[in-house]
Amino acid sequence: MLTYVYLIAIVAEAMSGALAAGRRNMDLFGVSLIAFLTALGGGTVRDILLGHYPVSWTQHPEYIFLTIGAGLMAMLLSRFMHHLRQLFLVLDAMGLIAFTVIGCNVALGLDYALPVVAMAGIITGIFGGILRDILCNRTPQVLRQELYASVSLLVALLYLGLRQQGVDDDLNLLASFSVGMLLRLSAIRFGWSLPMFSYAPGRWEH
Amino acid sequence: MLTYVYLIAIVAEAMSGALAAGRRNMDLFGVSLIAFLTALGGGTVRDILLGHYPVSWTQHPEYIFLTIGAGLMAMLLSRFMHHLRQLFLVLDAMGLIAFTVIGCNVALGLDYALPVVAMAGIITGIFGGILRDILCNRTPQVLRQELYASVSLLVALLYLGLRQQGVDDDLNLLASFSVGMLLRLSAIRFGWSLPMFSYAPGRWEH
Amino acid sequence: MLTYVYLIAIVAEAMSGALAAGRRNMDLFGVSLIAFLTALGGGTVRDILLGHYPVSWTQHPEYIFLTIGAGLMAMLLSRFMHHLRQLFLVLDAMGLIAFTVIGCNVALGLDYALPVVAMAGIITGIFGGILRDILCNRTPQVLRQELYASVSLLVALLYLGLRQQGVDDDLNLLASFSVGMLLRLSAIRFGWSLPMFSYAPGRWEH
Repeated sequence: MLTYVYLIAIVAEAMSGALAAGRRNMDLFGVSLIAFLTALGGGTVRDILLGHYPVSWTQHPEYIFLTIGAGLMAMLLSRFMHHLRQLFLVLDAMGLIAFTVIGCNVALGLDYALPVVAMAGIITGIFGGILRDILCNRTPQVLRQELYASVSLLVALLYLGLRQQGVDDDLNLLASFSVGMLLRLSAIRFGWSLPMFSYAPGRWEH
Repeated sequence: MLTYVYLIAIVAEAMSGALAAGRRNMDLFGVSLIAFLTALGGGTVRDILLGHYPVSWTQHPEYIFLTIGAGLMAMLLSRFMHHLRQLFLVLDAMGLIAFTVIGCNVALGLDYALPVVAMAGIITGIFGGILRDILCNRTPQVLRQELYASVSLLVALLYLGLRQQGVDDDLNLLASFSVGMLLRLSAIRFGWSLPMFSYAPGRWEH
Repeated sequence: MLTYVYLIAIVAEAMSGALAAGRRNMDLFGVSLIAFLTALGGGTVRDILLGHYPVSWTQHPEYIFLTIGAGLMAMLLSRFMHHLRQLFLVLDAMGLIAFTVIGCNVALGLDYALPVVAMAGIITGIFGGILRDILCNRTPQVLRQELYASVSLLVALLYLGLRQQGVDDDLNLLASFSVGMLLRLSAIRFGWSLPMFSYAPGRWEH
């Protein structure tokens, strides 16, 4: 089940990457590269950080074609994308949660301490979007909009907590997805966000 | 032969990095660091991604001095650089192709699947320039100008295709360089570029 | 002794990261992530580059809490931070030097050549700040302000030079810290900086 959700997730992330590239007037190649990086960059950063070689997608070359294809598809369909807004947000939320859980499981398999496992989950969840925004030369959106990265954090904590309690993994996935989706979609619907920190300093600190 | 082309290439890339740093009013250290990263960053990202340790340039410390020296030289000569425009573009094209072929060979030596090998070639070819642009806080130029990254893609495909056909490696290099240079220089001369994707969305997607 | 200085250093760096995030109106999560990355990102980049696995902070999960805690503290205290300016600059200078020496020692333990060792020290010293600035979408400050990255370079050269001469390590640390602090604080006090390279080119080079 997680595999199917994962495939849907990388397609949705690739499409969001392609649209961001379009805002910067990138060419076909740039659209493809950023689609690829948005979809698979989070897992790549996680694998490199944990020393988990070979990096996952290098063992599934079909993911390269899938994500680039999804990016080019988003480009072709861009004028219709706003009609798909609701669907897109749901897929993106599913992806965020699936990435987080998968990232936790990779780190668990390598026997890292629990705080590191949670970090691995969050990194998998949000770093694709961060790389996309770095390459598109904008401040990462995931760090300052409605609850997004914090949904990833909460899902990681919930998933690891239930696992510690010995809850069956299927049940755990169901609970983590339900709570995560509910929280993320509520945040979008009602505009929930974390408190923001605005600091307008003098020029002294670098 | 490829080694000499490689040395010329890292010098040319280091110089382009130094000039980009100069546009951001960086100091001598910034110029040196960005020259180094532009020249050797693509290979570094490739090695880390493929788990190819030790990272290549750490076994050739003389490359550190070569690239920093080239960067400082570009700074000293910057007022004359526009006279060298033609030469520079040719060297840069040679570098792009040499980096691509070298990157493919590193991945082939580690037995990755062919699509991953092509990605390794492209990453080696273009990521130095992408890191340069990220550090200089601008949208990566290689993703939106005349055919550049796509030359790297085409050279990777051609080189791997001929290799699959059992073509002798020297002949293959000659063919890949000829086609790559012709394409890149024609693209500059005639302003060829990939179609661009411009997307001015509402604010809904992150 | 170096361990205590290191702990002070990551706290100071985390606080500087949090303040930079506040300038970009990031939320609590963004502040935490950037505090973490500023403090531990330099060492992470060094470990990945050198193939030094597991990455250091993954073996000290308490550093995750320490750096995030320091970042949130800086947020709460932000209106008083300018009163602490002098203290902050001293702690930051200590951190720069401690990171540099620690980075050199990690690379020495892996038998890299001396120029690579010096690079590892500098990367540990300055890359946290560079990652912070990339994520906050600004040109890295460490590459264009009063002597900063160059203090890291000088400390690396001094430390390695004295070590080559067989100087006792405690004495070496004392000398490296003294010279480094003196240079950095003098640079701030008297506005010393490296020559800057300003280049306003035509549009030809990418």
